[in-house]
Amino acid sequence: MPIATRAFAATASDQPLAPYSFDRRDPGADDVAIDIKFAGVCHSDLHIVKNDLGNTRYPIVPGHEIAGIVSAVGANVTRFKVGDRVGVGCMVDSCRQCQPCQDGEEQYCVPGMTQTYGSPDPKGAEVGQAITQGGYSTAIVVDQNYVVTIPDSLPLDAAAPLLCAGITTYSPLKHWNIGPGSRVAVIGLGGLGHMAVKQAAAMGAEVTVLSTSDRKRADAERMGAKHFLINTDKAAMKAAGESFDLIINTVSATHEISNHVGLLAKDGTMVMLGLTTEGLPVFAMGLLWRRRSIAGSLIGGIRETQEMLDFCAAHDIACDIETIAPEQINEAYERMEKSDVRYRFVIDVSKMAEAA
Amino acid sequence: MPIATRAFAATASDQPLAPYSFDRRDPGADDVAIDIKFAGVCHSDLHIVKNDLGNTRYPIVPGHEIAGIVSAVGANVTRFKVGDRVGVGCMVDSCRQCQPCQDGEEQYCVPGMTQTYGSPDPKGAEVGQAITQGGYSTAIVVDQNYVVTIPDSLPLDAAAPLLCAGITTYSPLKHWNIGPGSRVAVIGLGGLGHMAVKQAAAMGAEVTVLSTSDRKRADAERMGAKHFLINTDKAAMKAAGESFDLIINTVSATHEISNHVGLLAKDGTMVMLGLTTEGLPVFAMGLLWRRRSIAGSLIGGIRETQEMLDFCAAHDIACDIETIAPEQINEAYERMEKSDVRYRFVIDVSKMAEAA
Repeated sequence: MPIATRAFAATASDQPLAPYSFDRRDPGADDVAIDIKFAGVCHSDLHIVKNDLGNTRYPIVPGHEIAGIVSAVGANVTRFKVGDRVGVGCMVDSCRQCQPCQDGEEQYCVPGMTQTYGSPDPKGAEVGQAITQGGYSTAIVVDQNYVVTIPDSLPLDAAAPLLCAGITTYSPLKHWNIGPGSRVAVIGLGGLGHMAVKQAAAMGAEVTVLSTSDRKRADAERMGAKHFLINTDKAAMKAAGESFDLIINTVSATHEISNHVGLLAKDGTMVMLGLTTEGLPVFAMGLLWRRRSIAGSLIGGIRETQEMLDFCAAHDIACDIETIAPEQINEAYERMEKSDVRYRFVIDVSKMAEAA
Repeated sequence: MPIATRAFAATASDQPLAPYSFDRRDPGADDVAIDIKFAGVCHSDLHIVKNDLGNTRYPIVPGHEIAGIVSAVGANVTRFKVGDRVGVGCMVDSCRQCQPCQDGEEQYCVPGMTQTYGSPDPKGAEVGQAITQGGYSTAIVVDQNYVVTIPDSLPLDAAAPLLCAGITTYSPLKHWNIGPGSRVAVIGLGGLGHMAVKQAAAMGAEVTVLSTSDRKRADAERMGAKHFLINTDKAAMKAAGESFDLIINTVSATHEISNHVGLLAKDGTMVMLGLTTEGLPVFAMGLLWRRRSIAGSLIGGIRETQEMLDFCAAHDIACDIETIAPEQINEAYERMEKSDVRYRFVIDVSKMAEAA
């Protein structure tokens, strides 16, 4: 039976999010139905709501940092049972055939993953939902292969943002072999940045936070950063030259990157994680002089997401969050645009009002 | 005794190169004195002559693709004897202490390598040469540790450009593990590009040349390219999407790179080898969607340069050259700026006129 679902949706790029009701599909044999308890608020949500990438289909329910409790499972579901604490991140399906899917890197699926919201959704046809709808909602139905277990020691609210922010930082830290002795810089102490600091420190790296002001220094140190660098301080930037193996760049606004490239040691990499929509000028000289790289990385695969959750549980890492009621989402977006959040908004879905 | 040397030098950014005479230092105990036979003409020479990087000290004798015959050796020199066929590339010294120097990657020397021309040169003080002077000259004196052997099977003239162009392409092909089955694209079939094609093909890669026109298709195929792609052909570019593990970008003029990033497969890298002086806009989205990288690479170390020469000899690879007399250098620069050379100018130094 379809699941009546209450949500907050955007109906146009210039409209605030507003209450919205729709049906989730009847769970199939491979599906897990989830009562959503908390949904993190990601900067990408805002990009899609505002149609910054030009491909948003309205109405759209954002949200891809989902934590909840299993409410029903299909006949083939073996990995989950009713009552389990589970999470869903940025994708709910992929082709499962291509090499990246075979390798557990479904985020790089060649035909393209089915994103948690905004993707064409053949399975939604029966309930009139031609595109996927996300986690700012009371329930979701997801194939078991795209659901992960949230370890018991992690609170559901502070775990929710791990499903995007947490895996987005964890995956490049692992891919670029961060471990004891690695020198890691994190640009921007926000939702992603604060996760990168905690995870890199837990991996044994010496972590430096780069920020435009001193405001978050104490927070950075509490999270595990050894150094704090104000990136408008030319003398300090020069002194830090050639000193990092990896720079995690979490800034999603257009910004200057060429002055940060010089901070990389030989063979160092700056990994871009933010969805900047404009081109950022890169100077070849800065790259070739020390064989540096500028790379990008996109969330992580399902298996790696589970690994990340287990790693966070083992190291007592969760997000620093500010919990909001669903009605506060538009105000939260305004504050997020001003980086006025420490460090992630999480919607308490239990406060979603009953449909009128 | 100092060695009287005839050369061609630039005296100002807006002046043509002209005959110039100076003394090379008396060879010290560790030095090799070389009668230069051929000197390749590199695009970097032009950058320095025109002061594009803003740090040229005049007069300057360009040239860092040097092939010649040993004319004298110092008391400590064990690796070379008079009459040996030798080469000198982009550097004539480095600190020898830092990690890159210890690792045989002297090109990334932390205090900075001593470049073959234009670098401060303490050893030149005795003959009044405060900066190094390059290979558009009849002789050079170089510490034995920065001299390489040119294998007998390689002609000296066609081997000269291997000392910069050849190592500049070989080093990234090795660093990014190119071998049988690798899919390599080369942007720009010029001095560097044609070396990249020959070397990558010899390593077993499937090579594609990207160019703005069809003019060099036959040459590319003769050199070992399997495919030729005109990069203004949108349909062809789209069809080639996500198909390369490595793109060797040899273009040294400001150019559009973001439309080439989409040609990279997952985890693919575009390596910039050209000294573009302006920032090139990079879109984060193109990188993160497939965890792609844009990197830079700078020539190669001394040990690797010898390895490259031996590799080229073993695979019968040399540069396609057009030999010129020293007086033709200014005309050669004009033609080089129009990419009107197949594929490298080499100065026949034996034709250097006697000093007046």
